[in-house]
Amino acid sequence: MSFELRIMDDALRPQCLGIFNRIIAEGETYPWDDPLTREDLDALYPPHEPVWCAVDPEGTVLGFVHIHPNGFGRTEHIGNCGYAVDAVARGKGIGRALVTKSLEVAREMGFAGLQFNAVVATNTAAIKLYESFGFSIIGTIPGGFRLGSAENPEYVDRHIMFLALQ
Amino acid sequence: MSFELRIMDDALRPQCLGIFNRIIAEGETYPWDDPLTREDLDALYPPHEPVWCAVDPEGTVLGFVHIHPNGFGRTEHIGNCGYAVDAVARGKGIGRALVTKSLEVAREMGFAGLQFNAVVATNTAAIKLYESFGFSIIGTIPGGFRLGSAENPEYVDRHIMFLALQ
Repeated sequence: MSFELRIMDDALRPQCLGIFNRIIAEGETYPWDDPLTREDLDALYPPHEPVWCAVDPEGTVLGFVHIHPNGFGRTEHIGNCGYAVDAVARGKGIGRALVTKSLEVAREMGFAGLQFNAVVATNTAAIKLYESFGFSIIGTIPGGFRLGSAENPEYVDRHIMFLALQ
Repeated sequence: MSFELRIMDDALRPQCLGIFNRIIAEGETYPWDDPLTREDLDALYPPHEPVWCAVDPEGTVLGFVHIHPNGFGRTEHIGNCGYAVDAVARGKGIGRALVTKSLEVAREMGFAGLQFNAVVATNTAAIKLYESFGFSIIGTIPGGFRLGSAENPEYVDRHIMFLALQ
């Protein structure tokens, strides 16, 4: 699958919103229960925080990554990345390309490390991918993520992963 | 030191803001670099999220705790508590009383566990206090907290602590 990496611009935002909401509907990796509006997406991805998109030759967005501080003030030197790969485009190296790009960007942005707050334990493909770049599971919230609906929940562990960049 | 525990009302908010900003000025436990406004405080503590205050017989607030979800959606069953004890009132059992109250409230609110995201490693009094209630350090972000200013930083570890409530 051929693709190039491009910074998200306004023209790409609707496609990113579509991917985001399909992943929310899967209900297995993101905390949101309900779809985001374009306004929600714009609040999540303010213009000064880079989002890199994997785009195929037809201009279809296949996935993207948002690189930003994990906290603020006295914790803002630790970054966070949020990845999304559309279901139809998985298993084709797009996640790996996005992680590679995000580490490069995070270093450029000067982050001392990257902290992922909520890697769902059942998301083994993501865990393996992050570990292949040197991330470690540094802690686990037992039952910290709900699969299923609030009425019919199944609780699974949620990992915190970290990579030092300096 | 005699005190009673009361839900924060509008009349107590200015005192809580004062404590909050004195703790921010200490620069050792909270991530904020700059003082909060009353508007910031109101956004942090929306009316539906309980804040319990320790108040002395003269009506002076000595400390307080905010009990609320640590995340949202598929992670909102895990709670978080933010504690504050004014410097002049430390070492007098107020922190212990606030933790006791907050665990009682967190159980009533139905949280499955409590996650603290940023317990600064140098804050040994807080760590010991939380551990005495059964909290464990479940992970550590190396150098995850900045002491000092952005221009003259000293980085220390930041712990994630957790207690199962069910």
